[in-house]
Amino acid sequence: MPDQSLLETFESPSKSPFLIEHLNEEFTSVCPKTGQPDFGTILLRYEPSERCIELKSLKLYYQSFRNEGIFYEALTNQIRDDLVTCMNPTWLQIVSNWRVRGGIRSTITASHGDIPAYLLE
Amino acid sequence: MPDQSLLETFESPSKSPFLIEHLNEEFTSVCPKTGQPDFGTILLRYEPSERCIELKSLKLYYQSFRNEGIFYEALTNQIRDDLVTCMNPTWLQIVSNWRVRGGIRSTITASHGDIPAYLLE
Amino acid sequence: MPDQSLLETFESPSKSPFLIEHLNEEFTSVCPKTGQPDFGTILLRYEPSERCIELKSLKLYYQSFRNEGIFYEALTNQIRDDLVTCMNPTWLQIVSNWRVRGGIRSTITASHGDIPAYLLE
Amino acid sequence: MPDQSLLETFESPSKSPFLIEHLNEEFTSVCPKTGQPDFGTILLRYEPSERCIELKSLKLYYQSFRNEGIFYEALTNQIRDDLVTCMNPTWLQIVSNWRVRGGIRSTITASHGDIPAYLLE
Amino acid sequence: MPDQSLLETFESPSKSPFLIEHLNEEFTSVCPKTGQPDFGTILLRYEPSERCIELKSLKLYYQSFRNEGIFYEALTNQIRDDLVTCMNPTWLQIVSNWRVRGGIRSTITASHGDIPAYLLE
Amino acid sequence: MPDQSLLETFESPSKSPFLIEHLNEEFTSVCPKTGQPDFGTILLRYEPSERCIELKSLKLYYQSFRNEGIFYEALTNQIRDDLVTCMNPTWLQIVSNWRVRGGIRSTITASHGDIPAYLLE
Amino acid sequence: MPDQSLLETFESPSKSPFLIEHLNEEFTSVCPKTGQPDFGTILLRYEPSERCIELKSLKLYYQSFRNEGIFYEALTNQIRDDLVTCMNPTWLQIVSNWRVRGGIRSTITASHGDIPAYLLE
Amino acid sequence: MPDQSLLETFESPSKSPFLIEHLNEEFTSVCPKTGQPDFGTILLRYEPSERCIELKSLKLYYQSFRNEGIFYEALTNQIRDDLVTCMNPTWLQIVSNWRVRGGIRSTITASHGDIPAYLLE
Amino acid sequence: MPDQSLLETFESPSKSPFLIEHLNEEFTSVCPKTGQPDFGTILLRYEPSERCIELKSLKLYYQSFRNEGIFYEALTNQIRDDLVTCMNPTWLQIVSNWRVRGGIRSTITASHGDIPAYLLE
Amino acid sequence: MPDQSLLETFESPSKSPFLIEHLNEEFTSVCPKTGQPDFGTILLRYEPSERCIELKSLKLYYQSFRNEGIFYEALTNQIRDDLVTCMNPTWLQIVSNWRVRGGIRSTITASHGDIPAYLLE
Repeated sequence: MPDQSLLETFESPSKSPFLIEHLNEEFTSVCPKTGQPDFGTILLRYEPSERCIELKSLKLYYQSFRNEGIFYEALTNQIRDDLVTCMNPTWLQIVSNWRVRGGIRSTITASHGDIPAYLLE
Repeated sequence: MPDQSLLETFESPSKSPFLIEHLNEEFTSVCPKTGQPDFGTILLRYEPSERCIELKSLKLYYQSFRNEGIFYEALTNQIRDDLVTCMNPTWLQIVSNWRVRGGIRSTITASHGDIPAYLLE
Repeated sequence: MPDQSLLETFESPSKSPFLIEHLNEEFTSVCPKTGQPDFGTILLRYEPSERCIELKSLKLYYQSFRNEGIFYEALTNQIRDDLVTCMNPTWLQIVSNWRVRGGIRSTITASHGDIPAYLLE
Repeated sequence: MPDQSLLETFESPSKSPFLIEHLNEEFTSVCPKTGQPDFGTILLRYEPSERCIELKSLKLYYQSFRNEGIFYEALTNQIRDDLVTCMNPTWLQIVSNWRVRGGIRSTITASHGDIPAYLLE
Repeated sequence: MPDQSLLETFESPSKSPFLIEHLNEEFTSVCPKTGQPDFGTILLRYEPSERCIELKSLKLYYQSFRNEGIFYEALTNQIRDDLVTCMNPTWLQIVSNWRVRGGIRSTITASHGDIPAYLLE
Repeated sequence: MPDQSLLETFESPSKSPFLIEHLNEEFTSVCPKTGQPDFGTILLRYEPSERCIELKSLKLYYQSFRNEGIFYEALTNQIRDDLVTCMNPTWLQIVSNWRVRGGIRSTITASHGDIPAYLLE
Repeated sequence: MPDQSLLETFESPSKSPFLIEHLNEEFTSVCPKTGQPDFGTILLRYEPSERCIELKSLKLYYQSFRNEGIFYEALTNQIRDDLVTCMNPTWLQIVSNWRVRGGIRSTITASHGDIPAYLLE
Repeated sequence: MPDQSLLETFESPSKSPFLIEHLNEEFTSVCPKTGQPDFGTILLRYEPSERCIELKSLKLYYQSFRNEGIFYEALTNQIRDDLVTCMNPTWLQIVSNWRVRGGIRSTITASHGDIPAYLLE
Repeated sequence: MPDQSLLETFESPSKSPFLIEHLNEEFTSVCPKTGQPDFGTILLRYEPSERCIELKSLKLYYQSFRNEGIFYEALTNQIRDDLVTCMNPTWLQIVSNWRVRGGIRSTITASHGDIPAYLLE
Repeated sequence: MPDQSLLETFESPSKSPFLIEHLNEEFTSVCPKTGQPDFGTILLRYEPSERCIELKSLKLYYQSFRNEGIFYEALTNQIRDDLVTCMNPTWLQIVSNWRVRGGIRSTITASHGDIPAYLLE
């Protein structure tokens, strides 16, 4: 079951704003309606304020969804909320991208804070 | 025949604005002029206000166009209108993309509401 | 319903053996178990003996499967048999390739006659 | 010779602004300097006001350039002007893209009207 | 835990030899050494003798490996053996392809019977 | 109209067997049934005996089909025959590949002589 | 040696602003430090005011760099200056893209004038 | 160990602002936690004020990280700082992109100065 | 320095012949002539007789080349010999593929034993 | 002018037969008919007997064609002959691949000796 306590952080190595992206290409959870496994990718993008997420702890946190029955929309918002809580970043975005179901490919994007100006390119 | 009553919704899992995209890669309808089948993809992108579209009901709604004779432009606007009616989203966009006919590949884009600021990247 | 009588042929323009391939990228039929539409591509490869298949008649023949409930394996063998019957080719191969169902992508290959030596490259 | 009278229109199916794109992947004309055939693609993008272009008439119009000797820049502007005249769209763009000549690949873009705000993404 | 009894078959629709391929793009099991999840794809290719594998039962069989700790080499040979036992095919091949671990991408191929002559192209 | 007399040859620069391939990516002719233009590519592969085809003359020969009404199968065999007549090569192959018509993509392959052993890789 | 006098222009066929792009995929010059040949591509993008560049003269101008020893940065600025001088365009951009040297791939972009508003998409 | 003194510069060949990009596709350092090698690419993008970075010195500077134990985030910020110190550019951006670790692909972006207006396309 | 003693094996899980491939996408050694680092990929393909290579030990063995000065041809043959010695496989092939040096991309292939018949497809 | 004396060899590091491939992606010579530069790639594949080609000397040899006027077919055979003379390999193949001229892309393949059995896959 999703376990926010797995997430660990470390102090940001720079006072200047910068951008971090971690694309997890091996995500699986379970459809709460059919009980069938879902497969997808989870992109985390954020500008840290004072803390950065530790990469291995992020992997274990994602794995804690393996047997969880949860819809795409709820999952994406929950991951956004959990990461905002533990890091308090200036900006953060979660993009979940799901494999085809019934001929349909889904993508959900949830954000926190204003998109940094240097990304408006 | 297109059947808007097939569409079902559920309550959005978050008060924060977020983006949902469903790309249907298996769409077919009929050309009203020649009676020949048309094949394409339908991309739905929206920011929910209070309701989200249920994925299986969306699939069945798309399938209800299977034997309908309808032009690309009319179809794209109708899907936009049907989905706006049933969900009342903050922003919504339909992009239909059609396979080659007479050496020409067509794409139609119909929108509702103002594009969210966090998409202006 | 599949209609073999739609197929028309014309006399081969050459006595020398040669190869013809027609890849239909817009095929749809129905799953007999779930009633859901299936989408795929059908590749026809053959070496004519005396007759070639007329392209528009081939398109109409494929369209006659649009509302037919039929499994991948049976469909591929039926198309092979129908085309062999109407053209009596030296060699013929049907390769049907299906979009993802339950995370699985399927391909069925049915042949008639010995593969021509000049293809063994 | 290019024949603007081939173009036909139909009434737009929606009062809401929307976008239409037709990519012709099979275009050929003649180089007026060398007499050699040119090959390219022509992308038409527009927001209709009251009329939309009929697809088959567009194809025939493009074919009327087949034996015309005309430079890339002149051709792109002429197509822009012909289509603006017959449809009076809110916004229109023609992008012609040409195959390699002397190691150089060319693209010409001609527009009419202000680009719609919902495209500024 | 892997459950061979989930596999169901149906009678082959043709007496002529033909080829069937099912590519499962959503496979996951567990590394028995580290306890970490593994992700990969499983390609099944076979020429049926009298029975074909039913597609949904194949999906459920693959899902029964979800929490199984098993090495790539053992898993590939076990799937080969289970499918040969239940279908007794003329020829069968399993190709498992695994995502990067320690910078290394692995592929295991296990076969049964002689490769059909019409595949020697 | 197709004009074989445009083809020019030069003496092969080597007594050792070798392979020459010319892929024409800009071919157009006319469908004899509908009068509509066809677009495709023509691949010429051959092992010369004593003469090689001059590249510019080959281009002009291909251009002589521009306004010719001719079916795919006949055209491919005619080009094979014209080139065999003018060069008398040890081995020659013509592969014509055509853009989508009615959702179907076609490829025709006509050969002369036995495929060289060093190609059997 | 680079020869600006090779450049020829012709009168722009339209009073409306439009965009022209010429991508030269066959460029070579020489590294002034090592004497080794450099290979790259040169993209020219511009909005003409009254004159357009003639394509064949552009090709010959680029070829005049073949044996010139010149650094990436200097070359890109020189081409920008030469073309601005001969055409006096509203806007112009040169993008040179170079093949790998020491594991590093370089791109240099030099511009003249303000980027046209219709490109701000 | 990272050695900033390896970096050499030369005078910018132009007073007009322009953009320089160097993509190093062969970067390796060491994970300070596991001691395992990391592999990635480093993209440097900048607008010079008065000095440009010399390409070979940049390569040697990157190679000085080969046996350095350093985290992605710290490394990206350090390279940004070292290059800003030695060149004092108008704008500079470092994008490090790392190969998969634990199924996760990471990208870090650190900038200096305001993004040039002509890049806001 | 290359250390063959790092390689560990385990008993093959099957008596039937099967194929194993491990593609290492993160390989680096040093050019003995210039002292510059080389970057490439190493593909190992083999049919085990009684022992299989343990994946983590293979990774560590490859890493032992990190500071070794060795030519492409010698390295490929040495890896082939080291792996044949420790596993005594029925068939084995090493394919090393190297990034561009002086505009040239190199690939070296060294084998042991006869290629299995089921690979002759 | 092409200079065979630039080629240097070194002793093969193995008595077992193996394969070496060098793909030169930066080749240019001159068309003897038009005086225009030609651009292409040259693939060298060979099985050494006792000597291997030294990579830097191969690069310089290829560069000696930079201002040589020579046809594709003659050039490919000359490179084959020069390399066979200096290395006396068991098997050797040269594949030259040329950029588009008049809409046509050419490839010339010249070989020496019998293709090794372990390549017949």
